[in-house]
Amino acid sequence: MAAAIKFVEGGTITSARGFLAGATYAGLKTYAADKLDLGLVLSESPCTAAGVFTTSTIKSPSVTVTQEHLAQGRVRGLVVNAGIANACVGEQGYKDAQEAASLAAARLGVQRQEVLVCSTGVIGVELPMSLIRAGMAKIQVTRDGGHLLARAMMTTDTRPKEAAVTFQVEGRQVHLGGVAKGSGMIHPNMATMLAFAATDAAVETQFLQAALREAADASFNMLTVDGDTSTNDSLVVLANGAAGNRPITANSPDAATFKDALQQLCVHLTREMARDGEGASRLIVVEVNGARNTQDARRAARTIAASSLVKTAVYGSDPNWGRVLAALGRSGAAVDENQIDLFVSGVCIMEGGKPIPFHREAVVSLMRGPEVSFRLQLNLGEGQATAWGCDLTEQYVMINSAYTT
Amino acid sequence: MAAAIKFVEGGTITSARGFLAGATYAGLKTYAADKLDLGLVLSESPCTAAGVFTTSTIKSPSVTVTQEHLAQGRVRGLVVNAGIANACVGEQGYKDAQEAASLAAARLGVQRQEVLVCSTGVIGVELPMSLIRAGMAKIQVTRDGGHLLARAMMTTDTRPKEAAVTFQVEGRQVHLGGVAKGSGMIHPNMATMLAFAATDAAVETQFLQAALREAADASFNMLTVDGDTSTNDSLVVLANGAAGNRPITANSPDAATFKDALQQLCVHLTREMARDGEGASRLIVVEVNGARNTQDARRAARTIAASSLVKTAVYGSDPNWGRVLAALGRSGAAVDENQIDLFVSGVCIMEGGKPIPFHREAVVSLMRGPEVSFRLQLNLGEGQATAWGCDLTEQYVMINSAYTT
Repeated sequence: MAAAIKFVEGGTITSARGFLAGATYAGLKTYAADKLDLGLVLSESPCTAAGVFTTSTIKSPSVTVTQEHLAQGRVRGLVVNAGIANACVGEQGYKDAQEAASLAAARLGVQRQEVLVCSTGVIGVELPMSLIRAGMAKIQVTRDGGHLLARAMMTTDTRPKEAAVTFQVEGRQVHLGGVAKGSGMIHPNMATMLAFAATDAAVETQFLQAALREAADASFNMLTVDGDTSTNDSLVVLANGAAGNRPITANSPDAATFKDALQQLCVHLTREMARDGEGASRLIVVEVNGARNTQDARRAARTIAASSLVKTAVYGSDPNWGRVLAALGRSGAAVDENQIDLFVSGVCIMEGGKPIPFHREAVVSLMRGPEVSFRLQLNLGEGQATAWGCDLTEQYVMINSAYTT
Repeated sequence: MAAAIKFVEGGTITSARGFLAGATYAGLKTYAADKLDLGLVLSESPCTAAGVFTTSTIKSPSVTVTQEHLAQGRVRGLVVNAGIANACVGEQGYKDAQEAASLAAARLGVQRQEVLVCSTGVIGVELPMSLIRAGMAKIQVTRDGGHLLARAMMTTDTRPKEAAVTFQVEGRQVHLGGVAKGSGMIHPNMATMLAFAATDAAVETQFLQAALREAADASFNMLTVDGDTSTNDSLVVLANGAAGNRPITANSPDAATFKDALQQLCVHLTREMARDGEGASRLIVVEVNGARNTQDARRAARTIAASSLVKTAVYGSDPNWGRVLAALGRSGAAVDENQIDLFVSGVCIMEGGKPIPFHREAVVSLMRGPEVSFRLQLNLGEGQATAWGCDLTEQYVMINSAYTT
């Protein structure tokens, strides 16, 4: 029996014991109502850590510094700024990311190399280091500071994204919390998806990295608001071992539970990001079953969720299954047209590749809800995947056509 | 010296000698003002032919029948219908496509296997064969019928797309004309990009196929309104040899001229499709020079032209170069950030990876024109490519969110 994993009400990154966080308004973010833009995370003890980063060939030096610090081992904290991405600014960007780490380390009483750096915001503008210096001095980290941190990461997000789960490891209750912002390419001038997770379980580094990669592939990498990667995308997890368990490895009895918990947290944050996509009026969930393999299932689910025509059809509450099939067909996944079953928000509208009569008004009505699902059964194999996205609205066009002007 | 290739004023597919065309309203297209929806092309003599088709795994049986007829050799004509895609309708679709070819063949006085079949329109609806039977009997093919054919292919297109070029082969004046509709994925419920070309030059089949593939790769395959392929995409070219030249082969002195002419015609039709994308207010041209190789250049140009954020920035006349660089970075093309030069509508705004001061109002003003260009110099190699697209507007969302409802 799998151990129970429960979501913690009001949970956030500091729901994990031994983690503190805080934030302030340094003056970097001029366009948002919620004026927090500089945040810190501190672990009371050294952490193992893992990260998954943008695959873009043009990446922020903040990502480079974070990767360097991760590579050298133990981590104690993290600094994040919103408003400016620290990308495409030449050599100064690397110096600024290093200085941000130094300033955070001094404030937190740890070493520079123990601090990760994350930036999100406008591309092509240098970090105003004097504002960051002044802001850093004002941050107080506290045991429930995760909520402030979640707000400080926001750019065009309309609400903070945070959650925590709790589960047992060796009979001890452990916690895993996280915060996130943005939804990838949908904020590409704001330039980023950022997600930070922290756990009070002890976890061996190599296993932590493998578990994080696996969780990312089934969550953030299935978020296809525009199917894209920014210059700053970063996902990191810290494990400080405050729970006192023996470090979890791939062979531990609790390995599967930890992976499951990490994935549940990541999926939760992914859904929140999709739901809060720019201009979005509803969440789209695409579930593909029976694909030839997992890769095919992921490809199909992502292509459908990313299709502008599926997205506009959802906006119009239009059960336009032809668009879903057209996206499936061009996804590259193996399909036998005569084997496809399709359900729209739970109603079967195609069976064995043939449209079947359905009560159109009933489906339109279901599609007016806050969440629309497309479930496909390809009947070719065991591949399964879920992708998340949001509808495409006039509001999206308005936000993005009048952004820097 | 390259032989002169000239565009023919008012040119269309029937500008090539020995080709006739015509169209009628059969009653398939209920939503367009321009009510022609069934068209025929006839060549007075047998043609060599070549085709490039959708790569979707879910394809219309009209495409299947066309591929079968192409494979068996000589072609005499083509039938096209707009309004219904003949896709996702089970086994009946193949029978209907065959019957459409038979009806057209009978009307044109040729064999069924000599007729190609193309359909475009709504997915999941059977072709109403009684309307097609009745319509076919009304079509008169004439020497300037290409203009009617171009209109009969339209679905959500706002204007017909047609052109012709003329050039010399063995000292004889030859003609190459074409018609096209739609812009791929931007009309995915209408489901199709179709383009037909015809020449009175004699062209050997194998060379014709190679030349068509090459032209498509540099034109229609660089049209990235949404970067997609429909169930019905078809591009075919017929060559009837009415000019009396020896068939052009890969080794003919005129091979390069023919390829150049075919590519110029295809690029012209591609630009017309991009400009007429659903809801589009302006054409986007992305030119990438100095890439490591052609593949990288194409990948980069397409990714930039397809980016929703670049498209919305163009709609807002916003020289938001960060979005262009973010798209370049995630395209997978090799880049050295410090080597990139970027020109927006002719104005250099980045050199050696660093933004340079520019007169913002002047660039915004240039971006208000009917065509916006992004030219990138990557300074890594000899790879060059151009991609075409259009801006993303509220109008696009409106059209596509209220389509079948």
